[in-house]
Amino acid sequence: MLQKTNRLTLVEQVALQMESLIESGKWVVGMRIPAEPKLMTELNVSRNTLREAIRALIHAGLLKTKQGDGTYVCSSSVLGVVLQKRILHSDTLQTLEVRHALEREGAHLAAQRRTSDEANELLLQLERCEAAAALGDIDGFVTEDIRLHQSIVAASHNEILIELYDHIAEAAQDSITSLTRYEVGADFLEMHRQLVEAIVDQDADRAVAAVHRYIAESQAVLDVKGGKQP
Amino acid sequence: MLQKTNRLTLVEQVALQMESLIESGKWVVGMRIPAEPKLMTELNVSRNTLREAIRALIHAGLLKTKQGDGTYVCSSSVLGVVLQKRILHSDTLQTLEVRHALEREGAHLAAQRRTSDEANELLLQLERCEAAAALGDIDGFVTEDIRLHQSIVAASHNEILIELYDHIAEAAQDSITSLTRYEVGADFLEMHRQLVEAIVDQDADRAVAAVHRYIAESQAVLDVKGGKQP
Repeated sequence: MLQKTNRLTLVEQVALQMESLIESGKWVVGMRIPAEPKLMTELNVSRNTLREAIRALIHAGLLKTKQGDGTYVCSSSVLGVVLQKRILHSDTLQTLEVRHALEREGAHLAAQRRTSDEANELLLQLERCEAAAALGDIDGFVTEDIRLHQSIVAASHNEILIELYDHIAEAAQDSITSLTRYEVGADFLEMHRQLVEAIVDQDADRAVAAVHRYIAESQAVLDVKGGKQP
Repeated sequence: MLQKTNRLTLVEQVALQMESLIESGKWVVGMRIPAEPKLMTELNVSRNTLREAIRALIHAGLLKTKQGDGTYVCSSSVLGVVLQKRILHSDTLQTLEVRHALEREGAHLAAQRRTSDEANELLLQLERCEAAAALGDIDGFVTEDIRLHQSIVAASHNEILIELYDHIAEAAQDSITSLTRYEVGADFLEMHRQLVEAIVDQDADRAVAAVHRYIAESQAVLDVKGGKQP
């Protein structure tokens, strides 16, 4: 029994070591991890221990084996994997409500904490949104719009908020696209400009008021589309 | 190679089966899982497959082996495990900001969606908070206060919000306790009463205003304690 426990602990240690290589970005998404013999030497473990640790990370959703072609990194964070699973099983309205909760807090804190570099980057990112909208490029607009919101939340300097928002925003991209097909109007763009300008001016109240306006707008679009909760 | 892939898939299937027994509440936290022979029969798998699947769930933080005493369920959700890890490595202010983002959205939605049973339960839970505060029972107050906020978020009927909030609130219990030692005053209780009454009255704006008041209060306490971000 003692031996079994020791063996488990070693597998666990090796799995955690590989997990931290992934979460720290030393092993990036899409990369093939080193071959077994190399990893066995580097981590100083047996083949069986290594294989079990890799299986644990496959279960966690961080690694994926391609038949006959080695093992690849397929996600950078366990939190991302589980959040994305949840979002996929939730309806659009629920996801939107959570996104908005985080966006509102993000806008409020960004207005207080953004650096001048971040302020300049937000203005540039806003112009990219406006350019995509002007071209009628809806997919391009959605991509730039998500980046704009991620940049705003990043300027909050709150690591948990940033991480939650990034995962939820990525997982929700499809539902945002379906929503956006109905709403890249001049009004919607104007609300985003007001939001960014309020953050640049370090005016938290105005930033939150702008978030409230586009939330109300999105809810109204969802209501029209019949996505409303009972 | 083909065989290896098949075997991996089977381990993965068994791990997912056990994960869903845990997440659905059929296997509850604290329970010892059935012995190997029984599980092998029930899941129709070999001992090796079963053991590997169990190890994957140990790595995920759902199961724990007690030496010489079998394997126990130690968490009900992978999301809970990873969120709690994040919260433990974050400072109090960051956790508080995320909690508040979710509480504000929760209060807003609860005012729109609470059932009359939920309204009654919120009033009862508020009285439990007030009773603990009246007795000067700080630990009791913190427990009841967290339950009150969880009940409010539960009345939002948004499953993602509820799940995120439950995990973050539990993980943040210690930091809430340290904060609360400075602030169970009449003012703080009054803000909670205003919040609950606004939700009972289905007045979303008043509910959000009450949340804003106690957030400002908590931030002020944190500033005094020197927990402010740079």
